[in-house]
Amino acid sequence: MTWQSSNLTAEAGDLVLIVGLRHKHFIFRLVPGQVLHTHRGVVAHDDLIGKSWGSQFTSHNGSPFYLLQPGMSDILRSLPRSTQILYPKDIGFFLVYMGVGPGKRVIEAGTGSGSMTVALAYAVGESGKVVSYDINPQFQAIAAKNLERLGLAGRVDLKIKDIGEGLDESGADIFFLDVQHPYSYISQVRAALKPGGFFGCIVPTSNKVTILLEALKRENFGFIEVCEIMLRFFKSDPEHFRPTDRMVAHTGYLVFARAMIGEGFIQDEGLESMPDMDE
Amino acid sequence: MTWQSSNLTAEAGDLVLIVGLRHKHFIFRLVPGQVLHTHRGVVAHDDLIGKSWGSQFTSHNGSPFYLLQPGMSDILRSLPRSTQILYPKDIGFFLVYMGVGPGKRVIEAGTGSGSMTVALAYAVGESGKVVSYDINPQFQAIAAKNLERLGLAGRVDLKIKDIGEGLDESGADIFFLDVQHPYSYISQVRAALKPGGFFGCIVPTSNKVTILLEALKRENFGFIEVCEIMLRFFKSDPEHFRPTDRMVAHTGYLVFARAMIGEGFIQDEGLESMPDMDE
Amino acid sequence: MTWQSSNLTAEAGDLVLIVGLRHKHFIFRLVPGQVLHTHRGVVAHDDLIGKSWGSQFTSHNGSPFYLLQPGMSDILRSLPRSTQILYPKDIGFFLVYMGVGPGKRVIEAGTGSGSMTVALAYAVGESGKVVSYDINPQFQAIAAKNLERLGLAGRVDLKIKDIGEGLDESGADIFFLDVQHPYSYISQVRAALKPGGFFGCIVPTSNKVTILLEALKRENFGFIEVCEIMLRFFKSDPEHFRPTDRMVAHTGYLVFARAMIGEGFIQDEGLESMPDMDE
Amino acid sequence: MTWQSSNLTAEAGDLVLIVGLRHKHFIFRLVPGQVLHTHRGVVAHDDLIGKSWGSQFTSHNGSPFYLLQPGMSDILRSLPRSTQILYPKDIGFFLVYMGVGPGKRVIEAGTGSGSMTVALAYAVGESGKVVSYDINPQFQAIAAKNLERLGLAGRVDLKIKDIGEGLDESGADIFFLDVQHPYSYISQVRAALKPGGFFGCIVPTSNKVTILLEALKRENFGFIEVCEIMLRFFKSDPEHFRPTDRMVAHTGYLVFARAMIGEGFIQDEGLESMPDMDE
Repeated sequence: MTWQSSNLTAEAGDLVLIVGLRHKHFIFRLVPGQVLHTHRGVVAHDDLIGKSWGSQFTSHNGSPFYLLQPGMSDILRSLPRSTQILYPKDIGFFLVYMGVGPGKRVIEAGTGSGSMTVALAYAVGESGKVVSYDINPQFQAIAAKNLERLGLAGRVDLKIKDIGEGLDESGADIFFLDVQHPYSYISQVRAALKPGGFFGCIVPTSNKVTILLEALKRENFGFIEVCEIMLRFFKSDPEHFRPTDRMVAHTGYLVFARAMIGEGFIQDEGLESMPDMDE
Repeated sequence: MTWQSSNLTAEAGDLVLIVGLRHKHFIFRLVPGQVLHTHRGVVAHDDLIGKSWGSQFTSHNGSPFYLLQPGMSDILRSLPRSTQILYPKDIGFFLVYMGVGPGKRVIEAGTGSGSMTVALAYAVGESGKVVSYDINPQFQAIAAKNLERLGLAGRVDLKIKDIGEGLDESGADIFFLDVQHPYSYISQVRAALKPGGFFGCIVPTSNKVTILLEALKRENFGFIEVCEIMLRFFKSDPEHFRPTDRMVAHTGYLVFARAMIGEGFIQDEGLESMPDMDE
Repeated sequence: MTWQSSNLTAEAGDLVLIVGLRHKHFIFRLVPGQVLHTHRGVVAHDDLIGKSWGSQFTSHNGSPFYLLQPGMSDILRSLPRSTQILYPKDIGFFLVYMGVGPGKRVIEAGTGSGSMTVALAYAVGESGKVVSYDINPQFQAIAAKNLERLGLAGRVDLKIKDIGEGLDESGADIFFLDVQHPYSYISQVRAALKPGGFFGCIVPTSNKVTILLEALKRENFGFIEVCEIMLRFFKSDPEHFRPTDRMVAHTGYLVFARAMIGEGFIQDEGLESMPDMDE
Repeated sequence: MTWQSSNLTAEAGDLVLIVGLRHKHFIFRLVPGQVLHTHRGVVAHDDLIGKSWGSQFTSHNGSPFYLLQPGMSDILRSLPRSTQILYPKDIGFFLVYMGVGPGKRVIEAGTGSGSMTVALAYAVGESGKVVSYDINPQFQAIAAKNLERLGLAGRVDLKIKDIGEGLDESGADIFFLDVQHPYSYISQVRAALKPGGFFGCIVPTSNKVTILLEALKRENFGFIEVCEIMLRFFKSDPEHFRPTDRMVAHTGYLVFARAMIGEGFIQDEGLESMPDMDE
């Protein structure tokens, strides 16, 4: 069971999101008898059980709150974290580009705070499998707790191991790499991926992108693409419609490639990279 | 069975992507005995069956090709279409933001060419369900063929009906709206969504966004967000790393909201909209 | 005399920029005998007189500073202000697009804090003329002081008058409009501009842009263009080259048009708007 | 005399812009007795002399045209060119950032097609001076013709010389560098600039930016900034207001710095770079 039931009302055991004034929000699992203490008063879990999703309620001191099922982006935003998390704008594109969906076998390194791990585990469903590597036990402990809390732990194997020493798996459909020096592990990644498999990576600087591109070409990856995604929010006032004043300018460069086999990949413009997705 | 098996080699019945020089690509299902005629020669399906994914082969006249499993974005790009398709950059964000995943019950209107229908059906898995409405039988015929070809038809109910007359469903987890005049159907959408359910819509002009925002507020939707996503590709030459010369400047404004219930949604900055996802 | 002499050293009467640790900067005119008090110590003007531009010095308590001539963008950033200022990214494009240069006769409304007034006055040189209207005497007092301090007052006529009552001038080369309701003054703007003259305007919301576009078409303006400029800075570390984390997402929509005469402007795609400047 | 008189009507000797259907435009100088042959008919210069700017006329076969004074961006777009031209979006920002205005002494290398040369010469006015270097006599011949045609030749010294051998000038206020390998000439640039002078450069790839940044730091430049400018146009239809479908994604990275003197520039965050211009 994952976090979002299809019930119309909140029930014991459900993960809930409550939102109060000034965006203050809390995500927790409903447990009969428990209470949540907030700066805007106390909320008894029992008062929420049986209440309709989308409804308004007040804490003990009359502060208004709304009761919602958390969406994936709510979840991602709220994850207890040890390292930087991936942004939904980037996660969404990785998932679609690499075809992460029910039944897929995906490898991730490193786990970090597990935001991508959560997104991958949710997307592959019960028939899929995610293996996630990290060298840092503390990070994985946090990720493990996050997955447990969301009911996704059963879909993920967390492994504490340096991928420089090679991975235990081979034939994975998809490999997502998010480590400090991604270019150092491309042959290990190559060995774990099935022929034709999808590779995705997020890289913070252009210097690292260029080293990664060389490593990918050396290891016979093809159809290499690099892109970045800019997300701009707007004020939702219909009479004064305009972008917000400030935005995130950069999260990382997204790099995609596919594991090719054979005598060496033909150095042709048409084979080196796919046409722009948007053309 | 969807289009991507986890096999290491292409087998009869698999959907394959072959890519030749200058980005020329073809997506088709392998049928023993059949041949594909291309401008770069004839390809016999039998020559591909048993061949490793990611490997190189040549057509009858020696033109080089690569054999791949199509990814979701390959599929989306290649869909036979009657109307404009949604772009992967927008689809990915919709899926993550609205939490589309295995087991979800999603309604879509209109079906159009079915690119979002394909993405939704893939993401909800075998345990989920997509209902997709359109008033145009021709569009749905194309969408039906696309879904059939991808092995996703079983997850989708296609309905030819004007949603202005109301929908057959209620209690949907997620509603995706992509029609000419979205603001005209918000009460019908509201009735089909479960309380707290997720609403998503793509709108081409700012004029339409502002009318939609008013309709959403009138129908007691809350947590309204509007954003746009800009995707920029880079040349993947490690020695001359830079963005491509041109890019898509606009596909549409993405509008999100949640169906609220009760006396009327509190008009507070903190409840009207969530903090920027990226903050 | 404007603020930037071509001397190699700072002299009495020069406008100087000094920059200390953590970006702390001050712009002031050198006056023999005066001192500047900063949080990082006292700086005697006499110590700077005769010093080479670009050189380092210390305040009385040993805090390091650099001595520079202020550039236009330094000046714009530092203007004492009553209202929001225009950003250099937008000012630069307005100046080039409308051909603001030596000898031009430019009208501006409203003056605001005078940031555009300063940029216009600097660009038109001693042979040009800027007339700037505002209804708020307090704003103009600040603008007047800014212009005086920069040695540009002689090129600008500041007028306190509601432009709704018409302007005193006609035959201006260029009109820059930056007021709350720009669409309300287009006929008055039209009357002040010479035939074929350049119109430029900055508008915060898409709602206002659409009303302005209608007003411009009604008043026989042609070659209408709307655009926005996004400026993204990068970290200047050569080993970790990447964009800064955050950026300004929106300052305003820039609207350009030219005053046409005759029977009514031909409603042709090719005459209504120029090809994209970047094509 | 530059190209834009302040007359209300076109006169012999004026530079004119005529625009016909489908954006077809021509820029030329009015000479009594001459005719212009276009695909949409013949235009006699004499028919335009005395005609009001902004007015409509027809060619001999009845095709409609509009008569305008060319703006700076019209000029830049129309320059006969040997190499890639700079875009108005970048030129405008360079001019404002570096304070290019009346009276300034500016050095440019290389001249290229002379689009920046034209913009610089226009901005510095009759009291200013531009020196422009190139090693290619053919390029400079084109630039010379462009400047001559615009009445700006008197403000520019064109020099055919390899700047690697050093420049003839010193003490320039501003240096604009646009050559293949900008990082190879930083010491020569440094020697030509006055202390504290402004350096600006446009660079196509991130690889070259990082080499340039190292060269600038080595040669004691400070206040280094790198940015890029994205310009997005909108459809000017007030009832369907939205961005155009496609846009220019990249022209180049803009690099700015100032020539510092003394023992070595303090390696402090606050001195290395200025705060974002937009903060």
